[in-house]
Amino acid sequence: MSISFDPRNLLAHMVGDGNGLTQAEIDEGKPAALAALQGFRQQFDAGAIGFPALPNNKALIDEILALAKKLDGTYDTVCVVGIGGSALGCWALDCAMRGPHPVQVKKPRLVILDNVDPDFIHNALESMTPKKTVVVVIAKSGSTAETMGGFLIVREWLMAGLGKKAAGRIVAVTSEGRGDLKVLATTEGYATFHIPENVGGRFSVLSAVGLVPAALIGLNIKKLCRGAAEMTENSWSEDLSSNIALSAALHHWLIWTLKHKTMQVAFPYSNFLWGTAFWFRQLWAESLGKAKDRTGTVIHVGQTPIAALGTTDQHSQVQLYIEGPNDKVFTFWTVKKTKNAGKIPKAKLGLVGFDYLGGKTMATLLDSERRATEAALAVNERPNCTFTLDKVDEEHLGAFLQLMEFETAFLGELLNINAFDQEGVELGKKFTYALMGRAGFDEFKQQFADYEKKRG
Amino acid sequence: MSISFDPRNLLAHMVGDGNGLTQAEIDEGKPAALAALQGFRQQFDAGAIGFPALPNNKALIDEILALAKKLDGTYDTVCVVGIGGSALGCWALDCAMRGPHPVQVKKPRLVILDNVDPDFIHNALESMTPKKTVVVVIAKSGSTAETMGGFLIVREWLMAGLGKKAAGRIVAVTSEGRGDLKVLATTEGYATFHIPENVGGRFSVLSAVGLVPAALIGLNIKKLCRGAAEMTENSWSEDLSSNIALSAALHHWLIWTLKHKTMQVAFPYSNFLWGTAFWFRQLWAESLGKAKDRTGTVIHVGQTPIAALGTTDQHSQVQLYIEGPNDKVFTFWTVKKTKNAGKIPKAKLGLVGFDYLGGKTMATLLDSERRATEAALAVNERPNCTFTLDKVDEEHLGAFLQLMEFETAFLGELLNINAFDQEGVELGKKFTYALMGRAGFDEFKQQFADYEKKRG
Repeated sequence: MSISFDPRNLLAHMVGDGNGLTQAEIDEGKPAALAALQGFRQQFDAGAIGFPALPNNKALIDEILALAKKLDGTYDTVCVVGIGGSALGCWALDCAMRGPHPVQVKKPRLVILDNVDPDFIHNALESMTPKKTVVVVIAKSGSTAETMGGFLIVREWLMAGLGKKAAGRIVAVTSEGRGDLKVLATTEGYATFHIPENVGGRFSVLSAVGLVPAALIGLNIKKLCRGAAEMTENSWSEDLSSNIALSAALHHWLIWTLKHKTMQVAFPYSNFLWGTAFWFRQLWAESLGKAKDRTGTVIHVGQTPIAALGTTDQHSQVQLYIEGPNDKVFTFWTVKKTKNAGKIPKAKLGLVGFDYLGGKTMATLLDSERRATEAALAVNERPNCTFTLDKVDEEHLGAFLQLMEFETAFLGELLNINAFDQEGVELGKKFTYALMGRAGFDEFKQQFADYEKKRG
Repeated sequence: MSISFDPRNLLAHMVGDGNGLTQAEIDEGKPAALAALQGFRQQFDAGAIGFPALPNNKALIDEILALAKKLDGTYDTVCVVGIGGSALGCWALDCAMRGPHPVQVKKPRLVILDNVDPDFIHNALESMTPKKTVVVVIAKSGSTAETMGGFLIVREWLMAGLGKKAAGRIVAVTSEGRGDLKVLATTEGYATFHIPENVGGRFSVLSAVGLVPAALIGLNIKKLCRGAAEMTENSWSEDLSSNIALSAALHHWLIWTLKHKTMQVAFPYSNFLWGTAFWFRQLWAESLGKAKDRTGTVIHVGQTPIAALGTTDQHSQVQLYIEGPNDKVFTFWTVKKTKNAGKIPKAKLGLVGFDYLGGKTMATLLDSERRATEAALAVNERPNCTFTLDKVDEEHLGAFLQLMEFETAFLGELLNINAFDQEGVELGKKFTYALMGRAGFDEFKQQFADYEKKRG
């Protein structure tokens, strides 16, 4: 497994003092980075935060593989009902290992019901057969409105097709000690897996949340966890020169806070990492977008993550990235070895626009375009850096996800915020409950009415 | 056709003076908005800019429908080879009218080769059959590297399967008077459609660029153009109270420049409008991200467009949107009438997390969540506004796309920039040509070598 981080285009001598880091700035930041590592390690040791331990849960892996073996051959579709941290991880895994839709050729298909758009759900049901579907319903709280609503519909659809056998086609992933989904799963006898209390949704891809769907679509979850375990070890190292997550955290922290780069563009040059970019968007936004620091001081901090796809977005976003305000840092994600080279035929058409490409490969073109874009950004004083994965397989993927989680946790320490809560979404949830007539939300019904009155 | 714009949550009395607009600020901006309309009208009348006239090209529509009729029944896949403005429009149309993958059930399938990732292209070819595929290659310049490379591969694949019949399965969309693709199309006898010189890629969805793929996948391009024509008429009106594009442009311009909202989140509450959000991202970023104004003054202007999906991104991005820096304006896109209601069964499970939902619809939940999110943002002084489409059909879609294009053109006038060029991407292209060994780029080969040397 080989993943590296290249910060050279973040440096002041490449992009100027106003936009790049000097060696002195980096050196000054190092003690804070080490303190962040130690601070986070204390939280892990105290049992407050659980994601670093997930890759080592061999009993869970065995239990999941046993379920997958039992169901093997009985389905053509895995339907995940979940949203946010209960959906983005399995999308990242599916997309990385089997490719994006609509050109994914491997079976079974993974359908993720991560929204309540009724036409979307209608299409999804139309595309599936009850007899050939396994449903995985995922909600840590056991009461997420979108997931509960979607699951009631899917459950009825399954029962209409299978009768009493429906329960045997449902797998629940939820908290062990709480929540209505847990009660229902027990009552109806679903196969059930638990999410540890100290693992939040956006850090749960290597818990049953991600591993159950992954195993059901045939990914090698042992290798996934092996790669993640290796990265975990790397991430606890106090040697900044070899700890990739800590080095990335230090550089991203400095370029963000000292050079005021309010946005980070996650820029994979791989269609297979597009799902991972959306998984990263949640991780970064929810963990690091906070109103208050740990002392209660109002800070309204947060770097906005943006997903861009190379080369595609060179023809959509790069004009802005090069010429617009210098308010972003770019993090390229590149893959050294693709499975295919994509040889371009030597057509010898006598046309200059075609003929220089003949005999070369798409892999070379992809790599050249990324290098060209990095250079064009740097020449225009736009700071950028690059993660390089040797290849996209389960081991590298597991390692890369774990790397991102560690980096995010370190950033939380560096900013002195709680990277593991999400209080900001509560008001919207309460307004929704009030509008949907859920009992106990009269206060918010009134507050919403006041808002509407004021709006006019 | 009914589309409306609601700016109420952009107003100072809802989100505070620092983040919202006062009536005085809006009134002061109105003369500039009218001048922008007149300024853009002059460019249109002078023939410099062509997109407003696209919906009225009845001859083109007939020609495209004739081609579609001729090919009807002979294919199960339409493969578009194009990137940026040559790809995003047909994705927007396909997604809006037939739904997102992997749950799209209608045939034929649209496969868009908008990247050079060799594994992506490999998967795509594996998923298609030469005999059942129609290829549409789209490039205005006729020499876009990504598209030329991809097309050489697809063309060979088609010839290997069909021999001399391959040419009859290829449609080219390019400039009439220039470019190597035009030469090749003529030599090999492809059906060919032309992109008017005064229509840029990101404004080309209602030219052959979008209409050829749309017709081939069975969309009603007449209705698409009818809706767009109606919006064109609306957009030329000097009555700000009824001109939706101009009103939106005025409000977006003021909130961006006076209240320093450096990002605009396009926030559709519809999986079907997700493709349109990505189309919009290009339109907004490339048109309005500019280093210089028309006088040559360096301004580095640009509002970063971000695509977010409701309700999905409530569980990913809204924590940041509510608690992070107040640096964004949110533009909700909502659909009044979905095709399905998505009735949630009354399961009567005796579980509060489920039972309040029973008997309600997913349509109500979707709408409640959007309203709740708008309110929660407003209560937290985050300015937001809403476009409402009565429904998603061809007429509304054509109108909405045209509305966005007009709004963008007006913004260009308000900012005194050229919204129709994209000089910023040239350096990256030249570095790519140099790295790929295209003749005539030695200067950039040297410049790239200097960059690498400096980087160390």
